[in-house]
Amino acid sequence: MTGADQTESELLRPSPRVGAWLVGARGAVATTARLGAAAVAAGLAPPTGLVTRLPAFRDVPLPELDQLVFGGHDLADTPLIKRADALAETGVIPATLPRAVEEELEATDFEIRPGIGPDDTERPREAIARARRDIEGFVEAHGLATVVVVNLASTEPPARAHPAHATLDALDEALDTGLAVLPPSSLYAYAALDAGCSFVDFTPSTGVRLPALEALALRRGVAHAGRDGKTGETLVKSALAPLFASRNLRVLSWAGTNLLGGGDGAALADPDRRRSKLDSKARALGAILGYQPDARIGIEHVADFGEWKTAWDHISFEGFLGTRMRMQFTWEGCDSALAAPLVLDLARLVASAQAAGYRGGISELAFFFKDPWGSQEHRLAPQFEALCEWAGGLATRA
Amino acid sequence: MTGADQTESELLRPSPRVGAWLVGARGAVATTARLGAAAVAAGLAPPTGLVTRLPAFRDVPLPELDQLVFGGHDLADTPLIKRADALAETGVIPATLPRAVEEELEATDFEIRPGIGPDDTERPREAIARARRDIEGFVEAHGLATVVVVNLASTEPPARAHPAHATLDALDEALDTGLAVLPPSSLYAYAALDAGCSFVDFTPSTGVRLPALEALALRRGVAHAGRDGKTGETLVKSALAPLFASRNLRVLSWAGTNLLGGGDGAALADPDRRRSKLDSKARALGAILGYQPDARIGIEHVADFGEWKTAWDHISFEGFLGTRMRMQFTWEGCDSALAAPLVLDLARLVASAQAAGYRGGISELAFFFKDPWGSQEHRLAPQFEALCEWAGGLATRA
Amino acid sequence: MTGADQTESELLRPSPRVGAWLVGARGAVATTARLGAAAVAAGLAPPTGLVTRLPAFRDVPLPELDQLVFGGHDLADTPLIKRADALAETGVIPATLPRAVEEELEATDFEIRPGIGPDDTERPREAIARARRDIEGFVEAHGLATVVVVNLASTEPPARAHPAHATLDALDEALDTGLAVLPPSSLYAYAALDAGCSFVDFTPSTGVRLPALEALALRRGVAHAGRDGKTGETLVKSALAPLFASRNLRVLSWAGTNLLGGGDGAALADPDRRRSKLDSKARALGAILGYQPDARIGIEHVADFGEWKTAWDHISFEGFLGTRMRMQFTWEGCDSALAAPLVLDLARLVASAQAAGYRGGISELAFFFKDPWGSQEHRLAPQFEALCEWAGGLATRA
Amino acid sequence: MTGADQTESELLRPSPRVGAWLVGARGAVATTARLGAAAVAAGLAPPTGLVTRLPAFRDVPLPELDQLVFGGHDLADTPLIKRADALAETGVIPATLPRAVEEELEATDFEIRPGIGPDDTERPREAIARARRDIEGFVEAHGLATVVVVNLASTEPPARAHPAHATLDALDEALDTGLAVLPPSSLYAYAALDAGCSFVDFTPSTGVRLPALEALALRRGVAHAGRDGKTGETLVKSALAPLFASRNLRVLSWAGTNLLGGGDGAALADPDRRRSKLDSKARALGAILGYQPDARIGIEHVADFGEWKTAWDHISFEGFLGTRMRMQFTWEGCDSALAAPLVLDLARLVASAQAAGYRGGISELAFFFKDPWGSQEHRLAPQFEALCEWAGGLATRA
Repeated sequence: MTGADQTESELLRPSPRVGAWLVGARGAVATTARLGAAAVAAGLAPPTGLVTRLPAFRDVPLPELDQLVFGGHDLADTPLIKRADALAETGVIPATLPRAVEEELEATDFEIRPGIGPDDTERPREAIARARRDIEGFVEAHGLATVVVVNLASTEPPARAHPAHATLDALDEALDTGLAVLPPSSLYAYAALDAGCSFVDFTPSTGVRLPALEALALRRGVAHAGRDGKTGETLVKSALAPLFASRNLRVLSWAGTNLLGGGDGAALADPDRRRSKLDSKARALGAILGYQPDARIGIEHVADFGEWKTAWDHISFEGFLGTRMRMQFTWEGCDSALAAPLVLDLARLVASAQAAGYRGGISELAFFFKDPWGSQEHRLAPQFEALCEWAGGLATRA
Repeated sequence: MTGADQTESELLRPSPRVGAWLVGARGAVATTARLGAAAVAAGLAPPTGLVTRLPAFRDVPLPELDQLVFGGHDLADTPLIKRADALAETGVIPATLPRAVEEELEATDFEIRPGIGPDDTERPREAIARARRDIEGFVEAHGLATVVVVNLASTEPPARAHPAHATLDALDEALDTGLAVLPPSSLYAYAALDAGCSFVDFTPSTGVRLPALEALALRRGVAHAGRDGKTGETLVKSALAPLFASRNLRVLSWAGTNLLGGGDGAALADPDRRRSKLDSKARALGAILGYQPDARIGIEHVADFGEWKTAWDHISFEGFLGTRMRMQFTWEGCDSALAAPLVLDLARLVASAQAAGYRGGISELAFFFKDPWGSQEHRLAPQFEALCEWAGGLATRA
Repeated sequence: MTGADQTESELLRPSPRVGAWLVGARGAVATTARLGAAAVAAGLAPPTGLVTRLPAFRDVPLPELDQLVFGGHDLADTPLIKRADALAETGVIPATLPRAVEEELEATDFEIRPGIGPDDTERPREAIARARRDIEGFVEAHGLATVVVVNLASTEPPARAHPAHATLDALDEALDTGLAVLPPSSLYAYAALDAGCSFVDFTPSTGVRLPALEALALRRGVAHAGRDGKTGETLVKSALAPLFASRNLRVLSWAGTNLLGGGDGAALADPDRRRSKLDSKARALGAILGYQPDARIGIEHVADFGEWKTAWDHISFEGFLGTRMRMQFTWEGCDSALAAPLVLDLARLVASAQAAGYRGGISELAFFFKDPWGSQEHRLAPQFEALCEWAGGLATRA
Repeated sequence: MTGADQTESELLRPSPRVGAWLVGARGAVATTARLGAAAVAAGLAPPTGLVTRLPAFRDVPLPELDQLVFGGHDLADTPLIKRADALAETGVIPATLPRAVEEELEATDFEIRPGIGPDDTERPREAIARARRDIEGFVEAHGLATVVVVNLASTEPPARAHPAHATLDALDEALDTGLAVLPPSSLYAYAALDAGCSFVDFTPSTGVRLPALEALALRRGVAHAGRDGKTGETLVKSALAPLFASRNLRVLSWAGTNLLGGGDGAALADPDRRRSKLDSKARALGAILGYQPDARIGIEHVADFGEWKTAWDHISFEGFLGTRMRMQFTWEGCDSALAAPLVLDLARLVASAQAAGYRGGISELAFFFKDPWGSQEHRLAPQFEALCEWAGGLATRA
């Protein structure tokens, strides 16, 4: 942080180091988050996009960006500096930044371990144990006060339901017999929770969202949050749909299409994975309006979009005496620039919550997610209000 | 109201008749409001668009639509049924409705008196006295418990400042000497307040928004609200701009253009009147964001649009590490269908507030206005919350 | 035609009556075409949308709208006046028109025969024979000089390839043995051609587009045209894509989505039928640009759109020194209002071509079609030029 | 040109050097044109955006890009490399290009002379003489076969009509008496024509478009072309409006707004200069449609857009039986990337025309201009066809 922002309470605050362990650590979002944390901490970039740098969070006891230590899992082994250079070339991050924080990127490179592949032959128990050892080694090496694990890996297809998901005992028994009942995101979640780390589902993948794993989080006394970062079409929807609700305008149909480039787009070109995304995106509208309009959501992969995505939505609504009207919008955003600061926000907030004694799912973080854990509130404004109030409470609890 | 909605408390409530006196009573908005009140009251149309028919207002003691008696001023003398037929022909209201409520429209025709023209030779005191007699005659003829005067006349150019606007004494003295220091909207406001009626500024015209007239409202113990009904581009802005603020995304520019047909568009083709509108529209953005981005608002009159208007807005914003992104929207609305139900909402709410003892400007009605009296809150969601809370309080006070 | 337009050459022209036999005669497009022909002929509506009423066609010898006799096939039996009233209610046609031409609609009702269903148990030969008898009876009853059969029925799934499609002999043999090798659209085409009538494929269904049937057309000496009327997204594409080509701007991706209501939308919600449409829509772009950009086309059925459709297209292109730019458009059209006049244009033009001795496919009608027979020209402007020149030639040949 | 493209006829072609003298030589468009010519000639960038590199121009005898020698006038003295670096920083040109062609940029720097300011105290005759000497010196120094002067300077306000504009004699007399009857663009034009150079009006400024100067061009036997490069909204209009015309769809209104950044936007924020632009933009529509719809064009300067511009157009049109439909588009382009290659195309084409003996205005270059000299053809497709045919003729004449 810059000196000007520093308040007395911050000067007095102890500065333990906090781990941010990113699953998919070499992806565009994770690379941008890691690079951006260094750049903002060094004053090389303004804190734009970081919710926790808004005035409302000034007195909330949060780890500073330079207190965060980064590590993670990834199936790829491209050095972060190469990933950063590629992002800079496409104009997603300023050309000079990668070199300016090269040292930090290299330090993080050393903390990234091989991930768990979707088709690994590794038995589930072994994969969990390996991931857990990776995280515990990270904690030990850096003397970390706490670690927040954030899943940023490619969206998985919806997990097949299995009776072993119902209770922790059933799950443990299934794992002991070597059954592959958990998708990679949940193997990571198991490892994180079991190691006493908080877990954030930033994708629509299953992650911690199984009764057995929610039980594990409570048993280990760790916090979790999710799911599926809200950064585009659904973000706009959650700001706009309340307009129609509060003006008693009846939405007849809300049809949209999403053009996605890059890795996310390619992954979502697979119908199964797309299903995960569409399920997650569909929830907000009915919850906000109180009825389900005809909602259509398309996703297309357009390779030349790179890190960018464009959503077009068409809303057909009825006003007084049945008059039909229309609204349309396009949202043209850069996925990594929208998601990365939220990853940092979540790492800061969940680390503080963990320190303040929270355990289990935190519904007050709904502001960040398309499919918020433990909350039926999808309207952006009340979500923000709830977030601010909850964060304010961290000061008292801390 | 339909029987099914009727609650016990409503059955016990006394049913005094309440006057809705519309300035510009033969315009498209007023005609739609009067026709719509009859149609919804008779169960011929659903209450879509009426905010006060949302569940949140179920227990608020408000006059029912069929308790409202309509009258008003207008410079034109076209019968309301002809205006309604013309609206039906352009598809703005269902073809069958005008004939279905013909009787109610004819009854209102008898209650519309000649308005005050912008270039009238009538001396101000005489105009005020005449308008006041019209309203008082209306009250007496129908035994009205209270009357809400709503200004729906064409937008005026900004009023020239005059020292006589500062205090009621100075104003009275100027009027006594025959000085034309008040625009028509303020002459109506003077007449209404002096007759003990509440006043709603639904346009950006001056109306009650002068210290002298605000003092008159307090002296006579009447409530007022305004200004400039929020039904299009600014409505969307007030829902969307908080998204950027709460996500710490920096809006670089917000440029929009409004294509307006019909009377409103023609009036606003006049640069002076347009100025009034633009001033009113510009306020929200800076207030919500906390800084003033480069904001550009265009207004064009496109005759073939009729009662319709289309706004296109382009928002350029900066995210994490300075990445530039864009959002665009179009809002294609029918002005009368959007504004008319709000006129009924305001008549109901202000009548109740007057009955509950409110006097002076009511800042909690900011939800309805582009340029809300006594409020710096332009964000739609908190405005709605404040409205609901305030309306809930009417039950207790009543 | 109205007197004012009448030229000397028209007065001298003999006025044989010409049949327009519409398959799907009670659908929205056919109803609008039949009603519109009567309305324009009677001077109740201007000829807007009719290409053959442009000045360029003034001297082309075409049957007048009131020389056309309408008949057709349909699976439904709703009277045309009811269909017309329903269209009027949704604002697609003026409220007063249906009653003004009720007599003509009723006369056409008597000329509509039961269609061939997709799952009929009728053997193919019988279905063809029945359809042929229907058409021949129509010719005889009205003493028609020629008949143009236009397929307006719901889009079929792509036909399964079959060796019998290759030659007329093979087809006849297969039909003789009772094999169901032809989809309904091709059974209609067989019947029409065999009866000596021209055939127009206004949908992407198979129709006459099989070598065996093209041979039949030549053998019977009849003209045909197709396929798939160009009325929306592809129409715009064929006007816009040449801009990029002639300015040497490189289109990287062209991604669009189509929101369709009504019958067409519902039919296209079926993935098989959608495939027919998408195949047809995809051809234009590569042909115009000379290379195939990343093209994505989505189709969604949105019930509340009724007869309306909205296409949104996003074009990403590269300019000088690789600078990336974008264009977007939305096209909000009423399908029946766009297609119906083209049906009348085609009936007039093909009837004249038939009279002038054309046989086989007419490539110069490419202007009307998404997937034009015998033409690789998809650019709208050259198509129009070719059409005008060809139509001019009809005068000489006639 | 690269070897692979070279044909036999090109090898035999003599290679005289041709001058491209740019007025506004340090502006964004001129800098991009100069840099781009070097980059494409060196094979560092593809010829995207260059019309004269389309296959249709393969056999047209045009000077190659590396035969062009650049010079010009400008009021500023920022080195081109600095301008290029600034353009690269905003992403308008690739980051590596400026340094790759630094030598060529520096060579051009030496050929740029101080321009004629709008408020210069220099007498008109002196300004003309000075500009003429600059150009003649350039010709001599490089032994140029021909020079094309292209005006790329900021748009001027419309010139005040003056009787001296009518004939060359009257103009000369007025200039002799020191009257300031010509705006800077026409002083440049006078100098160029008088020096025997062709002149291209790439802006809406007056330039050569006065009877007296057109006479001068004929007397000196030089060619000219103009006016106002067509690169955005009007370009799209000229491709789209013919769609409505050829389908007999009636355009009711065509309303658009242009958000412009950078220098062009700032200049056009001045109402007088904007008038020049709007006049130029308004002509196409009526000419293409054959009637004048309600056309509205707005221009707003939005500083953060930099070199970019976004146009939004809304077209309201009527189809069969009066059904109203709509089309909207946005065009998001980079002005310099769109205009620069056309400057090179025009230099090549006009140099060849001059060599082939053309004198006076060349109407066949209408394809490039919003307000084409000597042509009422505004439709893009016929313009392109006419251009190709005319260019083909250059081979024969040469």
